[in-house]
Amino acid sequence: MAEGRALNLLEERIMAEGELLPGEVLRVDRFLNHGLDVEVLDWMAGAFVERFAAARPDLVLTIEASGIAIAVLTAQKLGVPALFAKKRERKAGDLLPEDCYHGEVFSYTKQKSYKISVRKCLLPAGAKVLIVDDFLARGYALEALIDLVHSAQAEVVGIGIAIEKGFQEGGQKIREQGYPLCSLAIVDSLEPEIRLRV
Amino acid sequence: MAEGRALNLLEERIMAEGELLPGEVLRVDRFLNHGLDVEVLDWMAGAFVERFAAARPDLVLTIEASGIAIAVLTAQKLGVPALFAKKRERKAGDLLPEDCYHGEVFSYTKQKSYKISVRKCLLPAGAKVLIVDDFLARGYALEALIDLVHSAQAEVVGIGIAIEKGFQEGGQKIREQGYPLCSLAIVDSLEPEIRLRV
Repeated sequence: MAEGRALNLLEERIMAEGELLPGEVLRVDRFLNHGLDVEVLDWMAGAFVERFAAARPDLVLTIEASGIAIAVLTAQKLGVPALFAKKRERKAGDLLPEDCYHGEVFSYTKQKSYKISVRKCLLPAGAKVLIVDDFLARGYALEALIDLVHSAQAEVVGIGIAIEKGFQEGGQKIREQGYPLCSLAIVDSLEPEIRLRV
Repeated sequence: MAEGRALNLLEERIMAEGELLPGEVLRVDRFLNHGLDVEVLDWMAGAFVERFAAARPDLVLTIEASGIAIAVLTAQKLGVPALFAKKRERKAGDLLPEDCYHGEVFSYTKQKSYKISVRKCLLPAGAKVLIVDDFLARGYALEALIDLVHSAQAEVVGIGIAIEKGFQEGGQKIREQGYPLCSLAIVDSLEPEIRLRV
């Protein structure tokens, strides 16, 4: 697959261990979001720090569950706390505590929405926030995280993504809005095989 | 609260930032299972490594979402992979893939069961497994994790828990079964206030 440059550690792992499932699903659960390979996760955290340390983030924000490993290693290197938004499926009559900021994410895979929330006291006004996550596809989860940050009158100073699906619109939308977005691997196609942007 | 010895870093944080909710719930989401304080998490990971490194674990196993941060830092120090069991609520007609080991956990808080699973290929037979988690109360989640390990014909070589509710039966059950269990903080009572075993 490589044409112009050597693959980075994450890209190598995707090519070696990524699995294709129907519906343009790239399964990377051997190392990224079920099994956790600390070598590649640590490399990813280092890459995000290199890219965003100059923006002096106060906090690393992600969403449960797959983003937590990346967030905690990135936060450790930056010497700041991490915070993961909690998910829950939307139910009628769901009572949500007033001490949280809330968002809603449409899951294309599941064809339904779920709510996310963070405690207000953990996302202070004025905080410089680095958002990290494992995947960026259509961008719904990321947009909800950005909205949470704005609800808090805090600032998104960077967005670090492990794997961007370059053939879906999320990355382009986020870049057009002016956010500094760093995707460590961009997948240009999953059919008939994994093709990385190199 | 301290009578015999100085509090460790986790215990200090529990006393400073733990919050009591109705139903003997100890909320520690400012630093342990929503907001993630990397200093205390790193200390915890170091304590688990000190206690269990001699057993030479091949893998650190936990359950999403709260255990992931502890597991990844512990795995990093040990130089082994981590693995988190995935949760989902039990539904009628739920199809479960044949390439997973499955377990079921009764949630006392929610008064219903949910399923957990891990991919078989990520939990190999003969592996020496260190289980870590944030809380041990009645022990249902921990017992389900232990069963997953046994399903794989792997071995539990240690169990590292952040906070054990010493007034519930989980810790005693697990110790009576002979597992090497290390709880970094044991709460003896939550009424009328947090009382730690020191």
